[in-house]
Amino acid sequence: MEGLTKIDDLGKPRVVIVGGGFGGLELAKTLAEAPVQVVLIDRQNYHTFQPLLYQVATAGLDEGDIVSPFRKILAPQPNFYFRLAEVTSIDTTEQVVETTIGKVRYDFLVVATGAEPNYFGDAAMAKNSIAIKSVEEALELRNSILTNFEQALQLGDHEAINSLLDFVIVGGGPTGVEIAGALSELRTHVFPKDYRELDFKEMDIHVVQSGPVLLKGMSANASAKSLEYLQELGVQVWLETRVKSYDGYTVTLSTGQQLIARTLIWAAGVTGAPIQGLRADCLVPGNRYLVDGYSRIHGYENVFAIGDIALMKTAAYPDGHPMVAQPALQQGRRLGQNISRQLNGQLMETFEYHDKGAMATIGRNHAVADIKLFGREYHLDGFIAWLAWSFIHVISLVGFRNRLAVFFTWGWDYFTHDKGLRYIIGKTKAPLVEQDMEEKAIV
Amino acid sequence: MEGLTKIDDLGKPRVVIVGGGFGGLELAKTLAEAPVQVVLIDRQNYHTFQPLLYQVATAGLDEGDIVSPFRKILAPQPNFYFRLAEVTSIDTTEQVVETTIGKVRYDFLVVATGAEPNYFGDAAMAKNSIAIKSVEEALELRNSILTNFEQALQLGDHEAINSLLDFVIVGGGPTGVEIAGALSELRTHVFPKDYRELDFKEMDIHVVQSGPVLLKGMSANASAKSLEYLQELGVQVWLETRVKSYDGYTVTLSTGQQLIARTLIWAAGVTGAPIQGLRADCLVPGNRYLVDGYSRIHGYENVFAIGDIALMKTAAYPDGHPMVAQPALQQGRRLGQNISRQLNGQLMETFEYHDKGAMATIGRNHAVADIKLFGREYHLDGFIAWLAWSFIHVISLVGFRNRLAVFFTWGWDYFTHDKGLRYIIGKTKAPLVEQDMEEKAIV
Repeated sequence: MEGLTKIDDLGKPRVVIVGGGFGGLELAKTLAEAPVQVVLIDRQNYHTFQPLLYQVATAGLDEGDIVSPFRKILAPQPNFYFRLAEVTSIDTTEQVVETTIGKVRYDFLVVATGAEPNYFGDAAMAKNSIAIKSVEEALELRNSILTNFEQALQLGDHEAINSLLDFVIVGGGPTGVEIAGALSELRTHVFPKDYRELDFKEMDIHVVQSGPVLLKGMSANASAKSLEYLQELGVQVWLETRVKSYDGYTVTLSTGQQLIARTLIWAAGVTGAPIQGLRADCLVPGNRYLVDGYSRIHGYENVFAIGDIALMKTAAYPDGHPMVAQPALQQGRRLGQNISRQLNGQLMETFEYHDKGAMATIGRNHAVADIKLFGREYHLDGFIAWLAWSFIHVISLVGFRNRLAVFFTWGWDYFTHDKGLRYIIGKTKAPLVEQDMEEKAIV
Repeated sequence: MEGLTKIDDLGKPRVVIVGGGFGGLELAKTLAEAPVQVVLIDRQNYHTFQPLLYQVATAGLDEGDIVSPFRKILAPQPNFYFRLAEVTSIDTTEQVVETTIGKVRYDFLVVATGAEPNYFGDAAMAKNSIAIKSVEEALELRNSILTNFEQALQLGDHEAINSLLDFVIVGGGPTGVEIAGALSELRTHVFPKDYRELDFKEMDIHVVQSGPVLLKGMSANASAKSLEYLQELGVQVWLETRVKSYDGYTVTLSTGQQLIARTLIWAAGVTGAPIQGLRADCLVPGNRYLVDGYSRIHGYENVFAIGDIALMKTAAYPDGHPMVAQPALQQGRRLGQNISRQLNGQLMETFEYHDKGAMATIGRNHAVADIKLFGREYHLDGFIAWLAWSFIHVISLVGFRNRLAVFFTWGWDYFTHDKGLRYIIGKTKAPLVEQDMEEKAIV
């Protein structure tokens, strides 16, 4: 066939995985011993440990400590091939995916493209806010926070200074809560030493949550404690409030109130990142692919979807599984096993989600955790939950080196009350406009 | 005075330092106890440990481990102020520097802007090559190297593949030699595992040196051994050869020979980075400011220059000091002491350079070092020089945390034969043009 991209043909069925998040990576690993060729296609050459992106954004961790190059992780796996490319469409008749570097033939296709921020059609919000779904966005947020303070030093007008010092976080899920906690850590322990000329009593952190509780989907204890911890840290939490509009400066809330902030962090909803070319009826609201219990996309025999992009309705989860790491990981593992079974002439097994619980950390020494063990649920909070959160996140990182590096960094920062990665390298969101800088005070 | 930038006035003489490299940072630290206000202005908010930039470029070190935010280093120093800005000109009559964020008044002005790559007026070279003078350039080089290999996988044509696999380094000084060694380490130990589909016998590394020896200025032993080590590693060294032109693909040498390479690393000469506004007659060829033994720029009483931007002719160094870290550091310290002396009504002391020697590493276990101790010079090479190089570089890093992190990373990589930071984040030089990618082989 003409125009196919150059991948050594192993003469075995080829499994093409689009996206190397938790689900795609686990699937590739599970297929290590299977009689297949595994081709992973991703826009990045590395896997990102998304749950800790917020720490990259708040100068707590180096991006190098939470990403792992695919080739490094899977170098020892002989049937693994990687291609750095973006998939633009799927042709299920020819069984090829079109990519930015050419066509790739498949026998089994697995869509694991994850989710992207959902701005609900608000173009101004998409343009003016910062999300934290990728390393590049996390670094852009870090650069923007630091640049804000550098610029605030130059201004005389009280409102102008406040617009740079205040932060609005939209969304009271784990990411929103965790970034609010991290920002308030910086406000208490780090920034006052760096910027002695600024008054950090002026730095406000707002969390705007549409529903009545934080951490919706976790236990009532987790919701209540996370609110208590944030309020103790001086974070202003707006429950049952939505952001109506944001122009890069003024945040208008559904209550009619207005907040002034040059930085709005969008941690509200996500939407699937589907690919062109599949039948329209397999895409459900939220831009996710409807899949059966074997992760097969509705209407296809050899096209699958796992993780955030997949909606699997089961008896226990009639609305689908939570869009977090564990369902993606478990679906990837089960699908890998099922592909092997199918090639061995065995029947596939339906997916069943083993919920291990959920957790979120809120600044130093405080976290909430709902842990499910042996059919029982335990609700932890405070220091013990924070220790559990730290332990689970360190051991979940990909690669021993990253685990050691994060453990070392956290230990160091814990005892020094520091977050050392306060350098501005690369892109910054919304640099201050020229006329603002004209407003210069006299020595 | 109107339009001055907002800096709290301590009511003390103000020392404005432009540039926070080795010289500027050391000067700021030396003035910690002096009855002055210290204002450091830099385009970046961090100090860069330039001698290890080449390791950032070759995926051996994380940029976070070799940079230190100025505010973090100098937070405990009450008389220290930092401004993130670029200085555009100097007005010695009004005693102000013009910056991108407004004017800053000075009593003492110290220019410590360092050097930038010298392309000797070759605009095509400036556009098509990559230098390694900043973190952003080092990361761009790393991204480009990795992207080259990803793209080479897609090509069928032998010359096209070779153009991506081959690297030409112009300049046989420490940077050129060290990056050639690091690239050959990657060729031997790392890339063959990552890119099994490529034949690394095809990867050529060239070092082009205009003079008859490598590491000019070091001992004959260092020059000979570094050549021997590079040749053992399979690096092709072109002595007494210049690059006449480079169009991004074809490198034409002064011998008439041509090399094909999409990546040319420019480690050949540097030129000072002067600022507008000083008298023309204080700028000497090489764009450096001529200074007296007190680092005063020729013709001025209170305007100084230190480090690479300064040319100080002394009896022992009639052509000036080497443009490396040590003279800058020592000039910064001496100038700090002299400013204190002057304010105390004491006479200033002339600068005298204490040469501690020079060293360069060439891949794993091999280095050369000329060490000057108690008036004698010792020439080390091989493993012992490599240990000395590693030790000196670790202890010279700014901040205990960076020292520990680099020590850990080097130890880890030494025993695993790995360089783990092989992710592509941010800018890449010269992406492959569209028509190249059309040339796709069939599975």
